[in-house]
Amino acid sequence: MTAGFEAMWSLLHEVGRDARTGGYRRYAWTRADHELREWFAGEASARGLDLTLDRAGNQWAWWGDPDAAAAAGTPGVVAGSHLDSVPDGGAFDGPLGVVSAFAALDLLRDLLRARGVPPRRPVGVVNFVDEEGARFGVACAGSRLITGAMAPDAARALRDNEGVSMGEALQAAGRRPGEVGRDEEALRRVGTFVELHVEQGRGLVELGAPVGVASSIWPHGRWRAVLPGEANHAGTTRLEDRRDPMLAYARLVLAAREAAVRHGTVATCGKVLVEPNGINAIASSVTGWLDARGASADAVRAAVAELAELVEAEGGALTPESWTDETAFAPALRDRLAARLDAPVLATGAGHDAGILANAGVPTAMLFVRNPTGVSHSPAEFAEPADCASGVEALAAVLEDLAA
Amino acid sequence: MTAGFEAMWSLLHEVGRDARTGGYRRYAWTRADHELREWFAGEASARGLDLTLDRAGNQWAWWGDPDAAAAAGTPGVVAGSHLDSVPDGGAFDGPLGVVSAFAALDLLRDLLRARGVPPRRPVGVVNFVDEEGARFGVACAGSRLITGAMAPDAARALRDNEGVSMGEALQAAGRRPGEVGRDEEALRRVGTFVELHVEQGRGLVELGAPVGVASSIWPHGRWRAVLPGEANHAGTTRLEDRRDPMLAYARLVLAAREAAVRHGTVATCGKVLVEPNGINAIASSVTGWLDARGASADAVRAAVAELAELVEAEGGALTPESWTDETAFAPALRDRLAARLDAPVLATGAGHDAGILANAGVPTAMLFVRNPTGVSHSPAEFAEPADCASGVEALAAVLEDLAA
Repeated sequence: MTAGFEAMWSLLHEVGRDARTGGYRRYAWTRADHELREWFAGEASARGLDLTLDRAGNQWAWWGDPDAAAAAGTPGVVAGSHLDSVPDGGAFDGPLGVVSAFAALDLLRDLLRARGVPPRRPVGVVNFVDEEGARFGVACAGSRLITGAMAPDAARALRDNEGVSMGEALQAAGRRPGEVGRDEEALRRVGTFVELHVEQGRGLVELGAPVGVASSIWPHGRWRAVLPGEANHAGTTRLEDRRDPMLAYARLVLAAREAAVRHGTVATCGKVLVEPNGINAIASSVTGWLDARGASADAVRAAVAELAELVEAEGGALTPESWTDETAFAPALRDRLAARLDAPVLATGAGHDAGILANAGVPTAMLFVRNPTGVSHSPAEFAEPADCASGVEALAAVLEDLAA
Repeated sequence: MTAGFEAMWSLLHEVGRDARTGGYRRYAWTRADHELREWFAGEASARGLDLTLDRAGNQWAWWGDPDAAAAAGTPGVVAGSHLDSVPDGGAFDGPLGVVSAFAALDLLRDLLRARGVPPRRPVGVVNFVDEEGARFGVACAGSRLITGAMAPDAARALRDNEGVSMGEALQAAGRRPGEVGRDEEALRRVGTFVELHVEQGRGLVELGAPVGVASSIWPHGRWRAVLPGEANHAGTTRLEDRRDPMLAYARLVLAAREAAVRHGTVATCGKVLVEPNGINAIASSVTGWLDARGASADAVRAAVAELAELVEAEGGALTPESWTDETAFAPALRDRLAARLDAPVLATGAGHDAGILANAGVPTAMLFVRNPTGVSHSPAEFAEPADCASGVEALAAVLEDLAA
């Protein structure tokens, strides 16, 4: 592990960390997010990189002039990921990609300095905002907005659990909500995007490799089930007079697992909000979220269609919040990286900003770093220091291959 | 309806009311609670009543000297209820009893003034603190503490959803947490307690009566199910590798309903807290609450024992938070009131401070006011003004019967 990597990592360690759970609560446009963005700006400044924000507020740190290069037909090579987290998430999902990008850029600069040559293309590091969608329910909001995959009006209208809209959150964070939208200027600077990420399964453990190259991202989506009921007293209301939406939610949770088994997909009910959430009150409404993914988009859709029928039969509605088709990363780039790194190629069930950019036509690749337990989105998420160092070296080799 | 009743009612209308749901969020030792207590103190002061607090901070407003009367063997007659609410509760559950107590005291004073005689006993109005247990999970905390039905150490250690202990909440509200405990001095002042309450079912509708007298309160209790799991990524974790406590919770919810049907009881899962409650994260733990009641304590216990087995089989634990045996109100008093008011007698599935006092040996009665829909613990909770007026007249007649 390089000293630079360790120094960056230790600066991030306490930001947004919950003392009780040991997990991170780094939600977009909150105080923790501001601190993370300050850290990013500081790392850019310490390296003399040019810090720019795009229309969604994603942070880009450039070595070289990406506009001149884009005009000359040699747009930049960008590495990076995100700094936000799921509720009580781990330290690696996101930050490993950003820290590794800075560390790889350092290695590349040392190499080119030793050779006495400039880079052939500008090199950038990016921090995408609100990748996890923990606050507003839509993952990869920053990359979706600049590629036009999410409409600005729909984004601004999303509300968090406290009823704050994304537009209000942007305003409160000093952004300009009126400016969000597809950002041609930011996109044309990016010739290639490479996202390094901790693996979120045990694929590389089974393959015995510290680093792998992504082949594709499973099709995946999120749905919201609103189940209405009637608030009433838990002691005095006869069972036959009840309209208790907690029962409907319980049936949905079990049906989601059963449908996933039957269709060969995965399905998760990880978030639920109950009104009024009182011990001695029958709930007036339950809102549950469904995350569904699989190797086959048809299988995922078939499973979700069954669950939508169940929810409707309960008097509720299952509405999509996001959907991303299978993302196959650029095959030539993928094969070039796998050959350059002598690394295995594997698919993943997790969505990433890299997938959003790939679907928007940006030549994109992903590197995965081995995760010994496969656990992710949890304080137990981990990667060995030696594997993180292998990841930085691999990313530096990719930057050298593409930009030097 | 008397002008006094309406004036009191309108002062309470906006306190702790959520603009979005229209329901009340009046939790113990919060700002809304402080405002309600100020209102109570104001009503006592306006009538020249002596305001006292007992060791738990319950408010008592006395007409006459209850200590002298207790020493003389003629302790006071007290009416009242509570002012706190469940989350998004209605306007009547609690406040109707307190407002009616003040209004009935006014009627009694007018009557005795016209007769030119003093009352035979002191008359009091009480506001019991934290009746709903919305914040710390244990209902009737105020009456349980002064009767010794809840141990002070156990009470102080209870924690709300934000991790604040009841001891800390008491301290922050200006109470003295070290002083809570059984309060002989407060109890000996009370010769008889009568709680008027909106009915929480449709018993009086079916009987065609505006006011009824309580026979008994069903045995009832609350349990907490802690279901552990393993946080992990919703996209990359194979179904067979998951330890997802949301599935266990769903099985508990459905089993609770099924057991209640089979044992002829009621059971409700109205509150659940999920960690980390993220859309794309398998939950690391789910905590669910169970409220179970019925006419037969054995039937309730049998149903809960089955559910405890299920929870243990899921690797969790179902622990009791509170239990109250069947409460039969003093039969002679009950019959005297029913005869005096020509009112029907009926049981209820709801717990009340009156039940705690009755179990502590205080001669206690309850009056119910008709609820047209039976809905309670909901913003839709309602009683007709004419029925509320009948309730005040009935309570005044009871006070006259007992104290004049």
